[in-house]
Amino acid sequence: MEKIFERLEKVRKNSPLVHHITNYVTATDCADITKNFGASPVMADAKEEVQEMVALADALVINIGTINTFTFESMKLAGVAANKKGIPVVLDVCGAGSTTFRNEKCRELMKTFRIEVIKGNISEIATIAGFNIKTKGVDASAVEVDKYNLAKKLAEELSAVVVITGAEDVVSNGQDIYSIKNGTNIMGRIVGTGCMAASVIGTFCAVDEDYAMAAASALVCYEIAGENAEKTSDGPGTFKTGLLDKISSLSEISVNKMKKIEKIG
Amino acid sequence: MEKIFERLEKVRKNSPLVHHITNYVTATDCADITKNFGASPVMADAKEEVQEMVALADALVINIGTINTFTFESMKLAGVAANKKGIPVVLDVCGAGSTTFRNEKCRELMKTFRIEVIKGNISEIATIAGFNIKTKGVDASAVEVDKYNLAKKLAEELSAVVVITGAEDVVSNGQDIYSIKNGTNIMGRIVGTGCMAASVIGTFCAVDEDYAMAAASALVCYEIAGENAEKTSDGPGTFKTGLLDKISSLSEISVNKMKKIEKIG
Amino acid sequence: MEKIFERLEKVRKNSPLVHHITNYVTATDCADITKNFGASPVMADAKEEVQEMVALADALVINIGTINTFTFESMKLAGVAANKKGIPVVLDVCGAGSTTFRNEKCRELMKTFRIEVIKGNISEIATIAGFNIKTKGVDASAVEVDKYNLAKKLAEELSAVVVITGAEDVVSNGQDIYSIKNGTNIMGRIVGTGCMAASVIGTFCAVDEDYAMAAASALVCYEIAGENAEKTSDGPGTFKTGLLDKISSLSEISVNKMKKIEKIG
Repeated sequence: MEKIFERLEKVRKNSPLVHHITNYVTATDCADITKNFGASPVMADAKEEVQEMVALADALVINIGTINTFTFESMKLAGVAANKKGIPVVLDVCGAGSTTFRNEKCRELMKTFRIEVIKGNISEIATIAGFNIKTKGVDASAVEVDKYNLAKKLAEELSAVVVITGAEDVVSNGQDIYSIKNGTNIMGRIVGTGCMAASVIGTFCAVDEDYAMAAASALVCYEIAGENAEKTSDGPGTFKTGLLDKISSLSEISVNKMKKIEKIG
Repeated sequence: MEKIFERLEKVRKNSPLVHHITNYVTATDCADITKNFGASPVMADAKEEVQEMVALADALVINIGTINTFTFESMKLAGVAANKKGIPVVLDVCGAGSTTFRNEKCRELMKTFRIEVIKGNISEIATIAGFNIKTKGVDASAVEVDKYNLAKKLAEELSAVVVITGAEDVVSNGQDIYSIKNGTNIMGRIVGTGCMAASVIGTFCAVDEDYAMAAASALVCYEIAGENAEKTSDGPGTFKTGLLDKISSLSEISVNKMKKIEKIG
Repeated sequence: MEKIFERLEKVRKNSPLVHHITNYVTATDCADITKNFGASPVMADAKEEVQEMVALADALVINIGTINTFTFESMKLAGVAANKKGIPVVLDVCGAGSTTFRNEKCRELMKTFRIEVIKGNISEIATIAGFNIKTKGVDASAVEVDKYNLAKKLAEELSAVVVITGAEDVVSNGQDIYSIKNGTNIMGRIVGTGCMAASVIGTFCAVDEDYAMAAASALVCYEIAGENAEKTSDGPGTFKTGLLDKISSLSEISVNKMKKIEKIG
């Protein structure tokens, strides 16, 4: 059973606190989307307080988009604290594959604490899986790889849910593979849609221990809102504004009508 | 006399420079709203330049939303420089009550320089007043306390204007207590409305030495714009965009018709 | 020949990677506008990775809006790497003239690496040219100066293209002087329009070695989108959203009908 709308309702009812250590480019977008889903976002990143903030939180989202040596230390402390508390950690490997620094920091984070969900575009996730790839800054490069297999194998190896975002999203927990084909092309042409996806995944994982289904359900809801927003938008500006509108008005009918989690393997 | 619209007109005419040391999550929102009120926002936070920037400014807004040890040093230098110049300092105790670091840093700031207005939600302000409370990240927790009394007593103790934001805002200078009931529920469901309120308060205090009435008038104007924005919005996305629109079009009629500063005590 | 639309089409076709080291207030706006022009923005600023990120990029945009000693080091490394790779560097001297720190850091940057385009408002550029001026934070102060001559002389001195933005933009490469009168007053009343202009200039320079014409064409396209956005906006909020819409829908007809690069000298 998918129970996508039930999951959304649980987010709205529980209003989980989702702590972020993220980049300053899309921080507003990530906070907005988390709030619009009915949760409560917070974005502290000083090493002196992240552990205590995590102790209040229901999920931790880490995004390496503008990582530096200071926030790296905070990420490690926050991750360990999240493990200790038993709340899920979502790692958005934003820009992995573009620089050595980013690749190394990702690896060090994954060695330092347990990650429940790792999320990226195809070239970011392929980098994490050990392929020698160049990501174009924070946008995906073309990668010749079977993404179903990539997600499943990496999930197995990491004992974590792997999410590969794109026109088709792939989610795997190492056993099952799910495909989500909701969404619209315009989401790929807008800054922050990838980062927001990680926030939404963190928000759903905060209230649901089946992290693969939580992540897949998060993407479905988020992307259905995107489909709805496209209908009333005149371009990327009004689309982003509309996306925030449509999230708070997601109804059972729209979610159930359009849900498209397909089990691939 | 309330003279709310006169105060707004004075902001528009004088276009004060409002220096901010704030968080990176809502910095854009704060800059936007300050500018839309007709003022000029600036957001420098390097310790090497904040004193000189404050020397140009007409008000200083400090928000501890993503405070760290570097910006803390800059906040102290900026606050002292503002005191020296005689311009008002507004402190938004964003997230006070969530971590020890935040609570301590607030206390240290308040010991280092004089604050003209302190602003927070009910659990943030209760924390500052010494109650042992947990704020949910940056969102208010329920607090059983008489907020009129809390505002008045804390204002007296700190010799500063205290602003408690919420569905009903309370403003006190330690003698008088004002209540503002403008605004709309959606403002509580959007990221940045609290931070923006502090920017607007700073903007009004920049041109008016009656800081209690300036703060109350700022909230009335801001929240009337919110009421106007709600009428044309389809959700939180278009609401935020509309809010920015409605600020620049605030007219004497709308402000005077709807103003609701009520003297409580 | 102006070939403005051809330049826009080249941006859209090549989708250059535009690396930014910029401020956290308008970073989202800058990323959004760069993406909407069809390019790929990235905003890393850790000194450990900027050189490698620049090595992937087609242009580098540096904005000193919230510069500090850490990002200053990264800016120097990035600028030198950009020179080495031969990609254009656009320097937005945001807030020059407001503090000694900013003025000195600008000078040091310009000594450390070669700049292809320097961009600012009238008081920022006059500061760089050695006039003793106070910029009002990041907003222009009135300056009594012949801006055509200022642009030309400074361009000659720096061997760089100089762009002075305002109701009339002036662009000079030290030989020719161009005037652009597109745009609308509302662009001056909105946060981030100046920073976004630098991003757009960097985006056009990424695909075109005639930096003066690339900069001028960038401004024309950006400002025509602004004119189009004004027609459908109700104020500064919907204007900014509309601006992002209108960039992706810029057509040959609208660009050619309205282009207004005038050769002054």
